[in-house]
Amino acid sequence: MPESSGTPSTPDSGPPFAPLREPFLQSRKIYVTGSKADLRVALREVRQHPTVDAKGTVLAENPPVLVYDTSGPYTDPEVEVCLDRGLPALRAPWIERRGDVTPVRVPRVAGSAAFPAARTVLRCRSGRHLTQLYYARQGIITEEMEYVSIRERACAESVLEGSRRPGAPEPLFRETITPEMVRREITEGRAIIPANINHPEAEPMIIGRNFAVKINANIGNSALRGSIAEEVEKMVWAVRWGADTVMDLSTGVDIHDTREWIIRNSPVPIGSVPLYQALEKAGGNAVDLTWDLVRDTLIEQAEQGVDYFTLHAAALKDHFSLLTPRLTGIVSRGGAIMAAWCTAHRKENFLYTHWDDICEILAAYDVGVSIGDGLRPGCVHDANDAAQFAELKTQGELTRRAWDHFVQVMNEGPGHVPLDLIRENMDKQADWCCDAPFYTLGPLPTDIAAGYDHITSALGAALIGWNGAAMLCYVTPKEHLGLPDKEDVRTGVVAHKLAAHAADLAKGLPGARIRDDALSKARYEFRWSDQIALSLDPDKALRLRNEAVPGVAQAPEGFCSMCGPNFCSMRLYQTLCTVHGQRDS
Amino acid sequence: MPESSGTPSTPDSGPPFAPLREPFLQSRKIYVTGSKADLRVALREVRQHPTVDAKGTVLAENPPVLVYDTSGPYTDPEVEVCLDRGLPALRAPWIERRGDVTPVRVPRVAGSAAFPAARTVLRCRSGRHLTQLYYARQGIITEEMEYVSIRERACAESVLEGSRRPGAPEPLFRETITPEMVRREITEGRAIIPANINHPEAEPMIIGRNFAVKINANIGNSALRGSIAEEVEKMVWAVRWGADTVMDLSTGVDIHDTREWIIRNSPVPIGSVPLYQALEKAGGNAVDLTWDLVRDTLIEQAEQGVDYFTLHAAALKDHFSLLTPRLTGIVSRGGAIMAAWCTAHRKENFLYTHWDDICEILAAYDVGVSIGDGLRPGCVHDANDAAQFAELKTQGELTRRAWDHFVQVMNEGPGHVPLDLIRENMDKQADWCCDAPFYTLGPLPTDIAAGYDHITSALGAALIGWNGAAMLCYVTPKEHLGLPDKEDVRTGVVAHKLAAHAADLAKGLPGARIRDDALSKARYEFRWSDQIALSLDPDKALRLRNEAVPGVAQAPEGFCSMCGPNFCSMRLYQTLCTVHGQRDS
Repeated sequence: MPESSGTPSTPDSGPPFAPLREPFLQSRKIYVTGSKADLRVALREVRQHPTVDAKGTVLAENPPVLVYDTSGPYTDPEVEVCLDRGLPALRAPWIERRGDVTPVRVPRVAGSAAFPAARTVLRCRSGRHLTQLYYARQGIITEEMEYVSIRERACAESVLEGSRRPGAPEPLFRETITPEMVRREITEGRAIIPANINHPEAEPMIIGRNFAVKINANIGNSALRGSIAEEVEKMVWAVRWGADTVMDLSTGVDIHDTREWIIRNSPVPIGSVPLYQALEKAGGNAVDLTWDLVRDTLIEQAEQGVDYFTLHAAALKDHFSLLTPRLTGIVSRGGAIMAAWCTAHRKENFLYTHWDDICEILAAYDVGVSIGDGLRPGCVHDANDAAQFAELKTQGELTRRAWDHFVQVMNEGPGHVPLDLIRENMDKQADWCCDAPFYTLGPLPTDIAAGYDHITSALGAALIGWNGAAMLCYVTPKEHLGLPDKEDVRTGVVAHKLAAHAADLAKGLPGARIRDDALSKARYEFRWSDQIALSLDPDKALRLRNEAVPGVAQAPEGFCSMCGPNFCSMRLYQTLCTVHGQRDS
Repeated sequence: MPESSGTPSTPDSGPPFAPLREPFLQSRKIYVTGSKADLRVALREVRQHPTVDAKGTVLAENPPVLVYDTSGPYTDPEVEVCLDRGLPALRAPWIERRGDVTPVRVPRVAGSAAFPAARTVLRCRSGRHLTQLYYARQGIITEEMEYVSIRERACAESVLEGSRRPGAPEPLFRETITPEMVRREITEGRAIIPANINHPEAEPMIIGRNFAVKINANIGNSALRGSIAEEVEKMVWAVRWGADTVMDLSTGVDIHDTREWIIRNSPVPIGSVPLYQALEKAGGNAVDLTWDLVRDTLIEQAEQGVDYFTLHAAALKDHFSLLTPRLTGIVSRGGAIMAAWCTAHRKENFLYTHWDDICEILAAYDVGVSIGDGLRPGCVHDANDAAQFAELKTQGELTRRAWDHFVQVMNEGPGHVPLDLIRENMDKQADWCCDAPFYTLGPLPTDIAAGYDHITSALGAALIGWNGAAMLCYVTPKEHLGLPDKEDVRTGVVAHKLAAHAADLAKGLPGARIRDDALSKARYEFRWSDQIALSLDPDKALRLRNEAVPGVAQAPEGFCSMCGPNFCSMRLYQTLCTVHGQRDS
C-alpha cells in the first residue's frame, strides 16, 4: 500500500487490514453454486444456538440464518487477499466466454502511488454490444443475472407461507426472483446491474425497486484531507458493514491512482463523478472545462473499471433562472460546475449536448449512468421547487435516450425534503423517468441536525425506500461539517442499512423478515449471543452489551439487563406460560 | 447530593453539574411575560452574526432565532440552582391563587438518601376540582394554559406568510395557538398539560396533536445499576438536550428518594410507573400485589409530585389468550406483571376493576394518566395483532371514563411495528380513544439493529408523529442491550428531537421551519458558528467541525470543509451570482 509503508503490504501482514478480515460472530462465508461451476454466489451464514430450558436441556435446534453479504472475500479466511494484486477476477471467465470484448492495451504502471499489478484493459468489439441491458433485450440470461437472482433469493427461501397478514397493503412483489425475472426487470429498465467489463473483481449486484433496497457509501479524499491507504481502508470497511456500492468522490491529488487501488480491491461496484477529475485537469477552473477533457476522462475511468458514472447532464441552461427564489442555490458540486460553465459560455450544458457521444462510450464498457441531480434542494425551504422538477423531467428524457444505446440507467434524487413532500418526488421520478431505478441522497427531512444527519437521512431514506427508491446514498454524522473518518463511514452505512431493511419489510420483500424473526426469537429466549450475531453490527452490539453487563454477553442468564430478574417482562411471561400452559415451548 | 459527597453540594460547586449549567453557544435565556407578572415564559434566544461580503463589509443583519427551551433554570446563569433545595416553585402562587388546594402534611425527612428540604404536600379541597381539564371545561384559562400558548407560539411568531407551497397537503393546523385554543383542546381531551399541584417547579408543557410533537426520556436505576446522583444528573442532561418530560422507571433500592430528588429538581413534568414500586413493596412477587399496595403507592407518588402515571389497566384477562400466536409474548414490564397477577388469581386486572377509585386519586392532585400498552408488540412479527388492538380498544373505554373524573389522559402506543403498519395504529388510536394524545414508544420498524435502535425508533417516531402522535418516547442506542448511560441519554434525546421536528415540519406546524431556514441561510453564507449554534446539539456539531477542520469553526472561510475551495458548490454558485447577477445578495 502506498503511503502506509515502503514495501508492498498484504492485509494479513498487520494493521489496519487484519481487523477488516475477521469473520463476524458465529458466521462463515458460504457459496451457492449456480448453473455453471464458476458461478459461486457468496452469502453469510449465521449459526444459532439451540433453545434450552432452565436446566440447559435442548428443546429445539435453531437453523442458521442466511444473510445478504457485501463484504466480499475479505471475510472468508480461505481466500488469500493481497491488496497489491487485487481481488480474484470472479467475472473474467464469464466476460471472456461471451466473446464480445477485445483487449485495448496493458496500462503503464508508473509512479510511487501506482497500483503495481499489470492488467489488460478491455472494451467492446467493433459491431458488438455487451451491456447487461443489451443481453437482456436479446433474451440472454447472463451469469451476472443468475448470480443476483441467487443472491437476492437465497435469503428468502425459507420465507413462511402466509406471513403477511390479511388487509396489509399489497406488496410490491408479485413474483419470485428468478433469473428470468431479473432479465425482464433489466429489459424494462426497472433494474440495473452495474458491471463494467474492466471491474471483473466485483460480485454482481442488482439495483431496482423489485429487489432489496441497496445502499451506497461515499468515500474519497479532497484537497484538504485523505491518503490512498485511508481511502482503500474505508472502502473495505464500508463493504464490511453493508455498502452495496461505493462511490469514490476524490478531488485531491493522486485521483487516478486512488481509484485504481480502490477498484482492484473492491468486491462491490464502484461509482464516480468524472467531472471532478476533469476539473482537476482543467486546472480547477470550471470555465476551462471542455468536452474533450471530459471525454478523455470518461474513457480513462471506464478503462479502469468504474461501474457507474454520475453525470450532471440534466441541469440545463434554462433551469438556472428558476433558482432565484431559493435559499441555498446549488448544493451539488457537479451542478455548480456545469452552471458556472454554461453561464460563462452562454451555452447549453455540454454533457447534455454530447449525450449520445457519452452513451456510446458507456456502452463500450457497460458503465452504467446515474443521471445526477445537480439542482437538488439543499434545504427544506427549496424542496420540490420548479428548478428541481425541471431537471427531473430532463433526467427522464436522457434516461430514454440512454436506453436506446443499451446503457443501464438510474436517476439521482433529492437532498433535503420534508417528510410530507417525499412521496411526490418518488411518484414524479417513476412517472417521468419510466421506472428507472431511483438513487436517492437521503432525503433529509430537516436541516437542523448537524452532527446527527445520518439519522436525519435515514428517516427520509426509509420512507422513500418503502415508496420505491432502489438505492439510498448514505450520509454520515459529519455531513455538513467535514469529511467522514472510518467510524463515521461505519455509522453512516449501518444507519442506512437499517433504513433499507425497514423499507424492505414495509414493501413486503419476500423473506425480509426472516432475520427479524430469528433475532426476536433469540431475544425472547435470552440467547444473547445469537441476538448479537444476527444484528446489523454485531461488533457494536457486543461492545454495548459488555459495557452494560460485563462478561455475560455469551451466557444466557434468563433475564434482560435493563430490569433485573423481578422486572423482566419476558421472564415473567415465560414463567406464566410454563406454569399455566397458556403457550407451548 | 447523596452518594456523590457527604455534604450538600450545589451544581455550582463543581462536576458533574457545572457543565450542565453552561448556556449554549451564542444563546441566552429570555422570558416573555404573560398577563400576570409571575407568568414568565422561558425561551432560548440564539444570536446570529451579520451577513458579510468577501471583504467583511456587513450586508445584512440576521435576527436572533427563538427556540423552544426545555432546559429550565439550569441554562440561566442568573438563577442560583441548589440541588439540595430544589428549583424555584414557579407554579406555587398560581395554585394558591386558585384556592382549590389544602395542605395534607409536611413529609418526614429521614434517612441519608432523603431529600433534605421540607415542603408542604397539597391535595384538592373537599368538594372542589383542580385538574386542568376541569378548569378548561369551566371556561377557565389557567396560568398553565396561557404559559403553554406563549411557549408554543413565541417561536412561530415570525413565521413567513405563504411559506407553505400550493398543493402541499392540508396542514393539521387551522388556527393560531392562543390561550383560548389551548383551553378548547384540553376541554376536548385532545391535549393535556401534565401538572401535579405537588410539582410546582415544572414549567407547563402541552401534549397534543395540534402542538409541537414532544419527546420523553426514560431514566431510572435498576437492581443492577444506578445511583441517585447519576439519575438526577441524567434528568438534567436529558432536559438540556430537549426532553419535554422525563419518566423515572427506577426499580432498585431508594426508589422513593430517587424520585423525590428528581422531581424537586426537574423543570419538566415527571412520569412514573407506580406498579414498579408497588411490586418492590410486594417483595418482588407479582402474585402478592394487592389493590391496597397499589393505592397507597399512587397516593405516595401523587403527593411527591409525579405529573403522570403509566397504568397498565387495559390489559385484560381475556386478552392474554390472544397472545398465543406471538413470537415474543409480553415485552412490557407492567403488562407482564398484570398478566402474572390475573393468571395466578384467575381474576380481572385490578387496575381495571378499580379504575374509578384510581381516577379519584389522580383528580385530587391533577396527576395525568398515560394508559399503558402492556400488550404492545415486541417484534415486527407481532405488530398490529389481535391482542394489541383488543387492549387499544379498552384504552379507549378507560379514556372516556377518566374524562368523567376530569382526569387528563393520554394513551401509550406500539413498540415494534413495520413502517407499512404504523398508520393503522395511529388511525385506530385516534378513532377508539377519541383523539386523546397518543404517546408512542418508537415504533421500531425493524428488530435487527441492536446498538442502533435510537435510529430505528426515530424512523418510526417521525412517521407516527407526522401522522398525529403527540409525544414520542425516546429509545437509546443501549435499547435491548442494557441501561443507558449519560451519553446514550443525549444521543437518544437528540435523535427523537430530530424525529419530532421532522414531524412538525411535515404536519405544517406554524413557524417550525424558521430554525431550518435560518440555519440553511447561515450554511449558505458560510456562517459556521451560526450554523452550529442553531443545530439541535451545538456542542457535538462544534466538536465534529473541529475534528474535521481544526480551529476554523468560528471563522468563515468561504468554502466548505468537504470539498476544498475549487469544489465547493455553494462558493461556485455564489461567485456565479455575483458575476452574472442571476441572484441578489
